[in-house]
Amino acid sequence: MAKAPVLTPRADDFPRWYQDLIAKAELADNGPVRGTMVIRPYGYGLWERMQQEMDARIKATGTQNAYFPLLIPESYLTREAEHVEGFAPELAVVTHAGGKQLEEPVVVRPTSETIVNEYFAKWIQSYRDLPLLINQWANVVRWELRPRLFLRTTEFLWQEGHTAHATYEEARDFAARVQSEVYGDFLREVLAMDFVSGRKTVRERFAGAVNTLTLESMMGDGKALQMVTSHELGQNFARAFHTQYVSKDGRQEHVWQTSWGSTTRMIGALVMTHGDDDGLRVPPRLAPVQAVVLAVKGDEDVLSAVRALGDRLTEAGVRVQVDDRTDVPFGRRAVDWELKGVPMRIEVGPRDLEHGTAVLVRRIPGSKEPVAAAALPALLPGALEDDQALLLAQSRRRREDRTVEVTTLEEAVEAASTGWARLPWAVLGPAGEARLNEQGLTVRCLVAADDSVPASEDEPGVVAVVGRAY
Amino acid sequence: MAKAPVLTPRADDFPRWYQDLIAKAELADNGPVRGTMVIRPYGYGLWERMQQEMDARIKATGTQNAYFPLLIPESYLTREAEHVEGFAPELAVVTHAGGKQLEEPVVVRPTSETIVNEYFAKWIQSYRDLPLLINQWANVVRWELRPRLFLRTTEFLWQEGHTAHATYEEARDFAARVQSEVYGDFLREVLAMDFVSGRKTVRERFAGAVNTLTLESMMGDGKALQMVTSHELGQNFARAFHTQYVSKDGRQEHVWQTSWGSTTRMIGALVMTHGDDDGLRVPPRLAPVQAVVLAVKGDEDVLSAVRALGDRLTEAGVRVQVDDRTDVPFGRRAVDWELKGVPMRIEVGPRDLEHGTAVLVRRIPGSKEPVAAAALPALLPGALEDDQALLLAQSRRRREDRTVEVTTLEEAVEAASTGWARLPWAVLGPAGEARLNEQGLTVRCLVAADDSVPASEDEPGVVAVVGRAY
Repeated sequence: MAKAPVLTPRADDFPRWYQDLIAKAELADNGPVRGTMVIRPYGYGLWERMQQEMDARIKATGTQNAYFPLLIPESYLTREAEHVEGFAPELAVVTHAGGKQLEEPVVVRPTSETIVNEYFAKWIQSYRDLPLLINQWANVVRWELRPRLFLRTTEFLWQEGHTAHATYEEARDFAARVQSEVYGDFLREVLAMDFVSGRKTVRERFAGAVNTLTLESMMGDGKALQMVTSHELGQNFARAFHTQYVSKDGRQEHVWQTSWGSTTRMIGALVMTHGDDDGLRVPPRLAPVQAVVLAVKGDEDVLSAVRALGDRLTEAGVRVQVDDRTDVPFGRRAVDWELKGVPMRIEVGPRDLEHGTAVLVRRIPGSKEPVAAAALPALLPGALEDDQALLLAQSRRRREDRTVEVTTLEEAVEAASTGWARLPWAVLGPAGEARLNEQGLTVRCLVAADDSVPASEDEPGVVAVVGRAY
Repeated sequence: MAKAPVLTPRADDFPRWYQDLIAKAELADNGPVRGTMVIRPYGYGLWERMQQEMDARIKATGTQNAYFPLLIPESYLTREAEHVEGFAPELAVVTHAGGKQLEEPVVVRPTSETIVNEYFAKWIQSYRDLPLLINQWANVVRWELRPRLFLRTTEFLWQEGHTAHATYEEARDFAARVQSEVYGDFLREVLAMDFVSGRKTVRERFAGAVNTLTLESMMGDGKALQMVTSHELGQNFARAFHTQYVSKDGRQEHVWQTSWGSTTRMIGALVMTHGDDDGLRVPPRLAPVQAVVLAVKGDEDVLSAVRALGDRLTEAGVRVQVDDRTDVPFGRRAVDWELKGVPMRIEVGPRDLEHGTAVLVRRIPGSKEPVAAAALPALLPGALEDDQALLLAQSRRRREDRTVEVTTLEEAVEAASTGWARLPWAVLGPAGEARLNEQGLTVRCLVAADDSVPASEDEPGVVAVVGRAY
């Protein structure tokens, strides 16, 4: 007799499954203001681990953290024409404060290029001040008409990097470096997520950029999610804000800039990439809790055994939680840890004590077997790494299995009903892209013939990766 | 011949000195919107270290981090009468978003008790869900008419803890525990700051609380700064938001709550407590950079020596930065590190290489002496701890030297012109407190006869600590 499913099965209704999982794994709740969200402790724990891993990689590039104000004068936004056009429809505007109407309305930041440039223009005087490499961890607000938890929210948390360089080449190379050494490495090595790395078409570019690099991942339903982006801003903001430096030969020059961001959307991506019908599966290197040690029953011997085992696993370098809440039924706790996707569940009951055993349930491969309790500290670190690799392989296989090489727009539309299509950009072009958009499809990115990132969309052999997207 | 001072001397103009130091040590800039600030990388580095140390202490109490939305429906604020009265004059209000006027205006959070309670009411069902211990790291906005960098800013960064308990006693004890184990321990052990721990008078209480605990420190000019506060909220918010639980004997009860916060104000406090006429002095345990190794000149031997010494000090567990920017004059770099208050400056020039020496400049005691370079890795960790202790002792001595026991309101006014007065609360009372306020003085807190925190202001022997305050 099959047990009743805890979640709506993915095959029945993927969006409903996603919503169920977010709620039942206690990741987040909808906020009271449309499109906002409350990130619950377990969801926030995932974000804290993402921050730690990402922050270390950002700092390794020589970038320093700082903090710019939430509130930006409305007039700043209008200084860069494309930028304001892109963001105006999404702005939240403070018109009253301190009990009075403000003389100039201020906007809640949707992103910080404008205010950052106001200060870069003050801080940068000479070539000696370059490169200037700054990052901030912050919240931003973009009014959302079709919100979905983590994926599109009115307020989200992110890091935004902002850099200024002396030359075009340096800025271009820095954006590419962030894309591979910070973002690519993090997605692959920590989130165990496969991705395609490419450049956006002109239509999909960030408002105010001259080039946008993106990493696109395939979700469990075959749709694409834009994971992270890095922008070459050229001198657009530098001109608008007079961000200039004196070069070695004494001339005033505008700086060349980049900006790049990654957000709490990655939590949604994690769910839609690694989740299954029983809940989330958290990659071990990310997991705030890598192993939970469960007391099956509440007798003293069992409780002291699980605590001792927890201590030994902690000494072995595993992030452990002991679950000794024996006033909650065992079955309910087991389902709860499955939903939350903790990679290793170790169950210890009275009978195990007699035999020196425990039951090891590995969430990622879905295996369950008795093991010698004494062997666990030596066994677990390797098993966690194996399961990390398995998740990445599954993610890669999905993309490979569901990507089709096509030669016409009609074939691309057909292929994108279940996954992605790869189509020569020379065949598609901006006109074909517009036709795809009408059918709910987008060019996720352009890649070179050898899967590298093309230097321009006019390179021979450039391929458009087409799909439905979140 | 005396060198021209880099900063306005404290004795000449303390507020000007503070402003000079913030600018020249590159801690922060004024933001474009009145009262906002840009926290520059060195200032933000101090905040990151504060967050790390504070976060570990918060988690040690069993509290978990989460994140609640920035934007709160205006109607939430009005549900707790005292709360809205306290915060209404400081609110920033979003009236337009997504290109339209909002049906209900939303406020930018000034603090999160209201929205937290909305969710606590959903999450808490039974006594098994208690205590619920939540913290968030966030930005808040309170419109400031008399802003001062770090001390009073329109937007500031903070952590705000929010907890719910089954009984009054548990909530009271938890607030006291945060005050001593989290805040008190952090101020004393990390910031090397002396403080007085007490309770606020009714007049000075947080809007909506039944009791506010505070730690008050004396700044370099003898004024008081409220460092951190913890509030017993009683059942005020629980009643307003119907935050209830089913007790063990099956009855619906309102929870008892606390909230507590610490902010970027602590950076300002650090400056005004430990700063001197040459700049900041950062306590070694806090310092993002504990020791800087300076190449006096740019020849290759010197550069490789400072890098090797930097590596050896890093291995010894010291947070080190190597300054090999020999295109900037040595004197200017030395002044810069003094301004920034890095505890240890190690200068290595060509002559030092011959003798295997270096010059060790200790910023906190202000000493300068030649040392054997090879001895530094063994010497430095102990020296850092000694200088940490010296800062705390200096902070304590200042408060002791400048606090006067008095018996009348007139004497209190006199004493508070240079420091603090301690006056029996039975003598002062709410009426006397109102008179002090008219003269620009406040009761910073009430302490018991034995310097502990009194359980009520009516206890015999309660003393009012009176001072001018930031």
